[in-house]
Amino acid sequence: MKSILERKISIEESKAFLETFSIKQSDKGSLNGLTFAVKDLIDIGGYKTSCGNPSWLKTHPVAASNAVCVDQLLNEGAECIGKTISDELAFSLEGENFFYGTPLNPRAPDRIPGGSSSGSASAVSCGLVDFAIGTDTGGSVRVPASNCGIFGMRPSHGFISLAGVNPLAPSFDTVGVLARDSSILSKVAEVLIGFEINPKFDVGTIYLIREALDLVDEEVREAIQKPINHLRNLFPDRLREFSIREIDGEMNEKGLKNWYETHYTIQWADIWSSLGSWVEEAKPEFGPRIKKNFDIVKDLDRSKLEVSIRKRFHYFRRLKEFLKPNDLLCIPTAPAVAPLKGSLGIDRTKSDYHLRTLSLTSTSGIGRLPQVSLPMAHVKGVPVGISLLGAYGEDSFLLSVVNKIASEEK
Amino acid sequence: MKSILERKISIEESKAFLETFSIKQSDKGSLNGLTFAVKDLIDIGGYKTSCGNPSWLKTHPVAASNAVCVDQLLNEGAECIGKTISDELAFSLEGENFFYGTPLNPRAPDRIPGGSSSGSASAVSCGLVDFAIGTDTGGSVRVPASNCGIFGMRPSHGFISLAGVNPLAPSFDTVGVLARDSSILSKVAEVLIGFEINPKFDVGTIYLIREALDLVDEEVREAIQKPINHLRNLFPDRLREFSIREIDGEMNEKGLKNWYETHYTIQWADIWSSLGSWVEEAKPEFGPRIKKNFDIVKDLDRSKLEVSIRKRFHYFRRLKEFLKPNDLLCIPTAPAVAPLKGSLGIDRTKSDYHLRTLSLTSTSGIGRLPQVSLPMAHVKGVPVGISLLGAYGEDSFLLSVVNKIASEEK
Repeated sequence: MKSILERKISIEESKAFLETFSIKQSDKGSLNGLTFAVKDLIDIGGYKTSCGNPSWLKTHPVAASNAVCVDQLLNEGAECIGKTISDELAFSLEGENFFYGTPLNPRAPDRIPGGSSSGSASAVSCGLVDFAIGTDTGGSVRVPASNCGIFGMRPSHGFISLAGVNPLAPSFDTVGVLARDSSILSKVAEVLIGFEINPKFDVGTIYLIREALDLVDEEVREAIQKPINHLRNLFPDRLREFSIREIDGEMNEKGLKNWYETHYTIQWADIWSSLGSWVEEAKPEFGPRIKKNFDIVKDLDRSKLEVSIRKRFHYFRRLKEFLKPNDLLCIPTAPAVAPLKGSLGIDRTKSDYHLRTLSLTSTSGIGRLPQVSLPMAHVKGVPVGISLLGAYGEDSFLLSVVNKIASEEK
Repeated sequence: MKSILERKISIEESKAFLETFSIKQSDKGSLNGLTFAVKDLIDIGGYKTSCGNPSWLKTHPVAASNAVCVDQLLNEGAECIGKTISDELAFSLEGENFFYGTPLNPRAPDRIPGGSSSGSASAVSCGLVDFAIGTDTGGSVRVPASNCGIFGMRPSHGFISLAGVNPLAPSFDTVGVLARDSSILSKVAEVLIGFEINPKFDVGTIYLIREALDLVDEEVREAIQKPINHLRNLFPDRLREFSIREIDGEMNEKGLKNWYETHYTIQWADIWSSLGSWVEEAKPEFGPRIKKNFDIVKDLDRSKLEVSIRKRFHYFRRLKEFLKPNDLLCIPTAPAVAPLKGSLGIDRTKSDYHLRTLSLTSTSGIGRLPQVSLPMAHVKGVPVGISLLGAYGEDSFLLSVVNKIASEEK
């Protein structure tokens, strides 16, 4: 089914929001005039945060204050117009919430929006807000950005305050931003991270990760040739295809699956340590997928932690030594266009889609690297993102490059 | 009052523990044969975490699993022998818990142990465990290490999993380690962070921060001359006194108080966003100091966030550019020896001790830098720490230098 963006979409039709309102604290600031929405995993003072689950809603109090990141946006004049649907406890890539429904992917209405920041991505893609904030642990901003044909940014780890944001896996949790154009994305990142983007820059090397290209559907590989050629024209002689082995030194044939295995072991241990006590006490009602997810993380063999934590440090360290401040990595954001609604199973450990997606997203998680997904490719009209990753702490440089790419594309 | 370490101190006499037990999961691993204690802000599966406050204890469930960092230590053969007293919600530097008491500082029994990882520092200093884990947001490992005459490490931000650890201010929260000698500290850090320390290294420049020396009591400045001379002998021509202005570029006369102001604004906003909802709903009983603390953070003018977040990024960025991987900063850990018990007031905003201490500790918080406090100085027999800080991510190098300094001192 084709995009329905040629006509105006209503808030009701988008199914992106849990509730709408207007909060505006200032008529001044760099974001004055812009509207935004907030994933229902991030506190808004005076409202309850459900984290996408009715049992969580019942067992938690009204938020006493805004999350720090929400206050930052309001201080700069942006208007918050509502809370958007999150996948339960942010533990999903699908965007099909068993209790609160599936937000509309207006670029492909028969397909999932992606999650867990599903409502935030939908609200932006439907044109209902200028930008939205979400969270990204293993891809929860980047994957819905890819599915819904918008920009999505995961910052360097720890660069945006997580206070007032419910934890999933602290070793990888971040607050991320979704926006329909790169100039808005940049303005919001400037406020949240606290820098100014320098429009002057020199690009070092852009490393295309071969194993990432090998992981994706043939049609995605073809679709991203256009943006890759665009990069080649903009930055002549800067692109270099390379093997992730130059970073990880692994001699097996698993490629980025080594990164996936390292990531999920730590992530699952973190999730159970963060949320298991509530799960065991509240005995919450879960949708079938999330129930299975929590069974999986509860059963993790935690003696595997040592190997994964050593590998995480080693990969992080090698990336830190390898990437110069003006180098970039380039990968497809997702291995496929958004799957059809209802097409993914219950058990993520049996899902080739999850394995391939998380193999792609784990690079920035492990490396603590900033990543932006750009909506620059399509397969028969259905969007798929291409991603650039900067060195740790080089969020500003990364956004300079993204702005250049986006402005030259027009 | 002088040290009482010439005789054996019992667990009861230490007043460091809330409860004791034995948990040992493996007879193999690099920590086999070592015992440790866990700050009661960090989950141990099957036990309740009180976070130092009886109302928190009542309103929270039994921990379903160990915090990830606890599992890492148990996997490597260490034996956990108990839970140690924390200041309430980790929001204090004193170590005088209104409900659970003041753990013994055996090096100066009439003085406070320091907090908030008070029981962990006391247990190590009393010789009851080989090491202990605590948390450090604004100094909660480093200050008690200084007061109790032991080693204390705050790692690079995000380097040790915070899953199963109650948040205070996520922008600065870390898990830290307390140990009586540097080789144990190093072994524990190797496990928790996932690296191996290289005994071979070259030291670049060791920058003595002038404004840090200016902040401390005259007797502390005199006491740390001995370890500074030791550094000078070990690393000839490597020490350089310098001004923090070379980093922050501030033209006012506030010195490290600029860093304190930047740190506390973000920290207080983070604290209220993290804990305010529970405070407002549970209406907990607090000791007078912690009650005042929460009144203060609730009343923070959050429009000040923008300036502080920009300064935090700027200072972080400048430190990142300035410090080479083998450079170090050197500062006194605390401005004074441990204050006498009961000598500090209720209101931290009126406390010169807090202002000076937090001015010193905010450097690593803002810079996300690893810091080790070494027990190498004394004022009339009462210990005070001297600290080395490494560049972000250079925890391994920092520990190599600390090991060298400690081994040459013997």
